Amino acid sequence: MKRDLHAHQRIVDRALSIAHEIGLEGLTLGVLASALNRSKSGLFAHFRSKEELQLEVLREVTARFTKTVIIPALAAPRGEPRVRTLFDGYFDWIRGRDRRSGCMLMALAQEFDDRPGPVRDLLVEKMAAWQETIARVVRTAIEEKQFRENVDPQQFAYEMMGIAMAFHHSNKLLKDPQAKRLARASFEQLLARSRSSQRGDIQRKSSRKAA
Amino acid sequence: MKRDLHAHQRIVDRALSIAHEIGLEGLTLGVLASALNRSKSGLFAHFRSKEELQLEVLREVTARFTKTVIIPALAAPRGEPRVRTLFDGYFDWIRGRDRRSGCMLMALAQEFDDRPGPVRDLLVEKMAAWQETIARVVRTAIEEKQFRENVDPQQFAYEMMGIAMAFHHSNKLLKDPQAKRLARASFEQLLARSRSSQRGDIQRKSSRKAA
Repeated sequence: MKRDLHAHQRIVDRALSIAHEIGLEGLTLGVLASALNRSKSGLFAHFRSKEELQLEVLREVTARFTKTVIIPALAAPRGEPRVRTLFDGYFDWIRGRDRRSGCMLMALAQEFDDRPGPVRDLLVEKMAAWQETIARVVRTAIEEKQFRENVDPQQFAYEMMGIAMAFHHSNKLLKDPQAKRLARASFEQLLARSRSSQRGDIQRKSSRKAA
Repeated sequence: MKRDLHAHQRIVDRALSIAHEIGLEGLTLGVLASALNRSKSGLFAHFRSKEELQLEVLREVTARFTKTVIIPALAAPRGEPRVRTLFDGYFDWIRGRDRRSGCMLMALAQEFDDRPGPVRDLLVEKMAAWQETIARVVRTAIEEKQFRENVDPQQFAYEMMGIAMAFHHSNKLLKDPQAKRLARASFEQLLARSRSSQRGDIQRKSSRKAA
């Protein structure tokens, strides 16, 4: 049984590498079978359909994401250090520390944004959960009084995603040597304007409004 | 001759629609021929290769982008109104005002980021030119003293791209009803912290550093 699980994992790993090259939609049982030099019917014992294969690859990518990006952040102290660790982990992930899955979630988001079905549904669920994780970690910084009370965690998550996506674009497509500097500066700016040291300004503004 | 140009344009329009559905890499002369119910050899008079066809479709998308997003912004008054018009146009483009080409540049950026060749080269050239256009328009706002002197136009362009990309993601994949509000709020925030009304703060900070 243990050996079977290992064999299954090896097949999923290989499927993930192929999906990384050609996209998840191109990953059929036939393509996987010929890459593994196996019969297609042998693969049916592992995946009953192309869709099941795709779902399993997607689960594998998100499991790696959780292990590489989310778990280490949850081990960091609550508040800004945790927000920072989360961003750093995401940044490294996009740069492709784990080359077989790095960037793949962004590729999938683009590939499946107009392909309805269970793969898209699972992807949407996972991406929404990721944005909710960012928001939850931002809330720890508000609770610790490191971020202002009126920071909108959803807005912070949205902007952090934007910084990451622009980095992916500048780094991978444009190969802009400034990409890293621009991403870092944007994120530091986002942190700076979330910090509670600016609270004075905001309170003045709200009392002016109330008056 | 004029009729030939019209015929050619109709073929390019059709090719663009197909590329929008299946991606540019899937757009072969064979696929286009069967969509048009024509012979593949008849298409050779228009495009000598799949690559030439792809390049022409990409040129068509970017020409529409220039006409829809850039030209109207250049007609707006220099400075913040022009920056705002540029963002609004880009925002509408991403939402798919022109359904056949909206979002397509983002899909292409993802599709070709690891496919070296003339299509990728042209795409990189066009995307870099777009970011430079944003930076140039931001410079008019600095020259008009509406934005602070120390606003980094490249950084502004990077953050504006990030806001747009996160919007595309939230709107198209996640179908988040908050997507528009979050994009608008992020952009207003970017404008607010670029405006020269904040100059006092910055000058205080620099003189403190100098002291």
